[in-house]
Amino acid sequence: MISVGVIGATGYAGVELTRLLLGHPGIRIAGLSSVTFEGKAISEVYPGFAGLCDVTLTDMDKVIEDAEVVFASLPHGLSEEIAEKCAREGRVLVDLGADFRLHDEGDYREWYGLDYSYPELHKKAVYGLSELYREKIKAADIIANPGCYPTSVALGLAPAMKNGLVLLDGIVIDSKSGVTGAGRSLTQNTHFPEANESISAYKAGCHRHTPEIEQTLSELAGERVAVTFVPHLLPVNRGIESTIYCRLKESLSLGEIHKIYTEFYLGERFVRVMPEGEYAAIKNVRCSNYCDISLHCDIRTNTLIISTVIDNMVKGAAGQAIQNMNIRCGFDESAGLLLPPAII
Amino acid sequence: MISVGVIGATGYAGVELTRLLLGHPGIRIAGLSSVTFEGKAISEVYPGFAGLCDVTLTDMDKVIEDAEVVFASLPHGLSEEIAEKCAREGRVLVDLGADFRLHDEGDYREWYGLDYSYPELHKKAVYGLSELYREKIKAADIIANPGCYPTSVALGLAPAMKNGLVLLDGIVIDSKSGVTGAGRSLTQNTHFPEANESISAYKAGCHRHTPEIEQTLSELAGERVAVTFVPHLLPVNRGIESTIYCRLKESLSLGEIHKIYTEFYLGERFVRVMPEGEYAAIKNVRCSNYCDISLHCDIRTNTLIISTVIDNMVKGAAGQAIQNMNIRCGFDESAGLLLPPAII
Amino acid sequence: MISVGVIGATGYAGVELTRLLLGHPGIRIAGLSSVTFEGKAISEVYPGFAGLCDVTLTDMDKVIEDAEVVFASLPHGLSEEIAEKCAREGRVLVDLGADFRLHDEGDYREWYGLDYSYPELHKKAVYGLSELYREKIKAADIIANPGCYPTSVALGLAPAMKNGLVLLDGIVIDSKSGVTGAGRSLTQNTHFPEANESISAYKAGCHRHTPEIEQTLSELAGERVAVTFVPHLLPVNRGIESTIYCRLKESLSLGEIHKIYTEFYLGERFVRVMPEGEYAAIKNVRCSNYCDISLHCDIRTNTLIISTVIDNMVKGAAGQAIQNMNIRCGFDESAGLLLPPAII
Amino acid sequence: MISVGVIGATGYAGVELTRLLLGHPGIRIAGLSSVTFEGKAISEVYPGFAGLCDVTLTDMDKVIEDAEVVFASLPHGLSEEIAEKCAREGRVLVDLGADFRLHDEGDYREWYGLDYSYPELHKKAVYGLSELYREKIKAADIIANPGCYPTSVALGLAPAMKNGLVLLDGIVIDSKSGVTGAGRSLTQNTHFPEANESISAYKAGCHRHTPEIEQTLSELAGERVAVTFVPHLLPVNRGIESTIYCRLKESLSLGEIHKIYTEFYLGERFVRVMPEGEYAAIKNVRCSNYCDISLHCDIRTNTLIISTVIDNMVKGAAGQAIQNMNIRCGFDESAGLLLPPAII
Repeated sequence: MISVGVIGATGYAGVELTRLLLGHPGIRIAGLSSVTFEGKAISEVYPGFAGLCDVTLTDMDKVIEDAEVVFASLPHGLSEEIAEKCAREGRVLVDLGADFRLHDEGDYREWYGLDYSYPELHKKAVYGLSELYREKIKAADIIANPGCYPTSVALGLAPAMKNGLVLLDGIVIDSKSGVTGAGRSLTQNTHFPEANESISAYKAGCHRHTPEIEQTLSELAGERVAVTFVPHLLPVNRGIESTIYCRLKESLSLGEIHKIYTEFYLGERFVRVMPEGEYAAIKNVRCSNYCDISLHCDIRTNTLIISTVIDNMVKGAAGQAIQNMNIRCGFDESAGLLLPPAII
Repeated sequence: MISVGVIGATGYAGVELTRLLLGHPGIRIAGLSSVTFEGKAISEVYPGFAGLCDVTLTDMDKVIEDAEVVFASLPHGLSEEIAEKCAREGRVLVDLGADFRLHDEGDYREWYGLDYSYPELHKKAVYGLSELYREKIKAADIIANPGCYPTSVALGLAPAMKNGLVLLDGIVIDSKSGVTGAGRSLTQNTHFPEANESISAYKAGCHRHTPEIEQTLSELAGERVAVTFVPHLLPVNRGIESTIYCRLKESLSLGEIHKIYTEFYLGERFVRVMPEGEYAAIKNVRCSNYCDISLHCDIRTNTLIISTVIDNMVKGAAGQAIQNMNIRCGFDESAGLLLPPAII
Repeated sequence: MISVGVIGATGYAGVELTRLLLGHPGIRIAGLSSVTFEGKAISEVYPGFAGLCDVTLTDMDKVIEDAEVVFASLPHGLSEEIAEKCAREGRVLVDLGADFRLHDEGDYREWYGLDYSYPELHKKAVYGLSELYREKIKAADIIANPGCYPTSVALGLAPAMKNGLVLLDGIVIDSKSGVTGAGRSLTQNTHFPEANESISAYKAGCHRHTPEIEQTLSELAGERVAVTFVPHLLPVNRGIESTIYCRLKESLSLGEIHKIYTEFYLGERFVRVMPEGEYAAIKNVRCSNYCDISLHCDIRTNTLIISTVIDNMVKGAAGQAIQNMNIRCGFDESAGLLLPPAII
Repeated sequence: MISVGVIGATGYAGVELTRLLLGHPGIRIAGLSSVTFEGKAISEVYPGFAGLCDVTLTDMDKVIEDAEVVFASLPHGLSEEIAEKCAREGRVLVDLGADFRLHDEGDYREWYGLDYSYPELHKKAVYGLSELYREKIKAADIIANPGCYPTSVALGLAPAMKNGLVLLDGIVIDSKSGVTGAGRSLTQNTHFPEANESISAYKAGCHRHTPEIEQTLSELAGERVAVTFVPHLLPVNRGIESTIYCRLKESLSLGEIHKIYTEFYLGERFVRVMPEGEYAAIKNVRCSNYCDISLHCDIRTNTLIISTVIDNMVKGAAGQAIQNMNIRCGFDESAGLLLPPAII
């Protein structure tokens, strides 16, 4: 039994993490923290947890003190201090925030408006896209859990990038995210009557996940990649669908591309390449750690169209965080994550 | 390891049953049947199962042959034959249909328009409302899994009935069910644009779950109870909320009633009496086997108002079926059902 | 052309009022006020109005100064001052708030916690349930526009009350309201991921619309009526469905009751008694000023079940306010309200 | 008063047309036809019409006989016969189907699998994108009402195309449509529990609206344009959002592009270019004939991102059909269409 803790347990990612950890066979929850609700039981904040998890919310120092593995699920700018404390205490940190995702301080400064406080910690951090950086994750003490959109995009493009199938310029990514992606905080746009029965783009070309997407794609391609990325707010609770458009370098048949993808993900537990002719749909991954990928060709414009879906709260946040802990701590990679999708 | 099978595995209750069985530690799936999709893999019908469950759908005889415990999830009128075969083969049957729920053949004839084909089998059948008939279920070879509405109502009224808190006439039950309750078959009313953003009552005072509700309440009260029951089609996928109105026999405080309820359900894993002042909400039980009950008093009219919520697909169907199998087969009652609710 | 103004034009009822007034052939909008957004164009707050209505939001005094008919759509407790000013200036006030709805100051004090500031104004106020108080409305200078729930209930019960069809005790009202009913202000319960895919009761037996419902029913019945009223938050934008349960005094056939209802509402433009066997559904009145009523009998318990639907923003607020202005000002009663429902 | 009729009045586009025509001041409905429901009142099929429109559904010949303007809203392949009859009877035909949209018979054959039956009628048909082909529509007797997706795309790209702002190759169009776009017919994908809380692409690169989009863009650009077009099924009733990606020929500022768009649509009643920094959202055009356009630049990739929204049932079908009738018959272009959007 490994003891784990969650800092920021009452945000949506934190609460989903807690929910999933309750079903993990190899861990025990040593502590949960919340600034807003400190002193309350988590089941007072989320009555759905009554009887299942009535842990009293503490402060973050208590969590770091008591847990061998610390999950932090906070807005960016707060994780470096936590990482520093974890390093001092010898804790493994899985950070669901953005602080350790970008390797380049310049990028971080440009997109997040902050400098690194502890540059040396960033050298030790590993980007936790489980399927792509598994070996590094095994040895990391700071795991930067990827953003939800970047997860849906990188998994969709990795085989194409690695195998040089597509032109590197002109890649377009049109993503749609459920409203839990915007978090628990109240805003006019996420007020039920304004989000429901609508959709709109936001932060077109300027979302902070852009440099994170480009960082991974560039590593996969071996050269600098710039993409056009536009997210949309989708009136569902959970799920991201990303439709990715890229030009094929040469004319490949859909069958050939499908084979390359299937081989690339051979043996992966959580990535499924759908049969030709089918379309990825959020319902097929809801409440699960799967990423489904469907492939389509527009032969008229020689464009490869990749549709990927994940549950933004699971593979896009809490589930992948647990997958990373599993990799790091030697559990079966799917421990606590063997939830079949809630397909209806 | 007990071998289990599902007859009617591609209907919504059947597929939810399959989904939950995939996570049960003590069983293996020996067979799944479907008339419509025989010969196909279930993952072709439900792509969300790809890689998790690619079992080929067979006919029901094969399921009965290969499984020690048989779940049947079919429209009413088809389960007696199955029960007869199961009896001959020595199988335990958990029937999610209506055929064995009503003890009185006259009731069955009146509400379902059919006679019993095998009257002797009905004598052996036990009504599987787990919390209320646990001892009988332990020894039963035919378990009639309750309807979704009756589950939500009987659990809400049982403590009041058993303790004689309320007048037996004039009980009003206003229920709202998610659209999965109407099943996988296509109808105009469940076509997305017609169900979405609307609500309406249906079968007011004449829904087939009425005699089933009254049967349980009458047993609890020790005398004949008649209720007014009106279901509504709610534009959500999963969940039932039942608001139950009954007159208090004498003036009890909410605190006293709350105490009676809490004691009645002491030790139950899947029934939660909410703290005074809170309201049962579908989100708190979504994708879980819980039934939440909240209690309210209108002192001006001396009315006890009971609000209960369940996930119609879990506690209202597949989850309770597994709970009953657990009771019957000696598993921990919560095996395979320890899913925290998907609260967001 | 009559000049009208809206105080509180950026709340949901205010903005719906503005939207409907834009299509009214006999008025011109003389002013719109908002405390929060004073100085901005309403189309900056609601971009859907761009090009249609770019009026700059002022303060309420300006509205009262410039408009012959003033609509006020504010939280309770603020309308008496406005009424006093309107009286001084000779304006007709249609108040969508609660301040003038209750005839009895004791009721107001009990349910709203406030005393009357201007008791004499209350004597001049008329309760604006158009179909029931049309003659009084014609001469009123203060029209208290009914609450949304009370409208849906009073129209459903009026024929039964007037004709003495039902027992006056034991009436149960189970209402479900779309989220716009909770207004524009942000709350955790109306945050999209928490309202969506759920339902729950709230303020069971203690909602402030209860005395308003009882006041109208008592007037109709000619004696004091107390009801049990439980509202629910429904995950749709617009609409209220109220299912009303009452015991028939004597055994009447559904056909006889249907005939009484049809005759009661003969000639009414906005109340439709549905054919026997059909069920009222929100979609059939969405974005319209209709109230649909369907009638059902549970002969087993001698219960009359009445299901009514309205659009809470139209017949339940802005539409009825305009209907009342039409009555008061001599317009055709349906002027500006001839919108067929948005049935899909 | 002009007499109008609707062929196919019970499909979703037909019923929306009927709904809007009920509010048009210059016409009277001379007839409605339906193959499925002939002989019934339309209010029996759609109870929301009760009291508003109780016209008995006839066959199409009766409609053509009685109406000066005939709207046909049928699946493709059925309108040529109707057009031929209308031509013989001297009727104006507004065809909401696809038969007359494509100028090139080869395109029609390739995408719809049919030859022209009456080639000479096609020469007389005008493509009814009101804002772009207004002058031709004025004189046309066969108006091919555009598809919903093509309307949302052509209006979004017209100023860019006409002014040569963007490269003609590599245009990507990612569209999301509400479920009414799939029509009234029942399918598994539009069954509430399967469409709700999900999204997926469909017909990627092979949707029949592709050649229609390209035809208009090619005319605007003056040379052959090929696009990559992927539609998605969005879990809302009404609305289309199209996000369009294209490379700027030279580096223009967003301000300059915005100015070009604003000038292009100067004086248009139903096209709104949103202020810089805002995003088009379905809610702002719901139940209205507006098309909102928002403009965004990704300067890092020199990409112009255009987001457009329409109500697929109004500007994308019935509303534009009426707009075209207004243009053709000399009504004010906005007659019957002055519905402010139902923004909440």
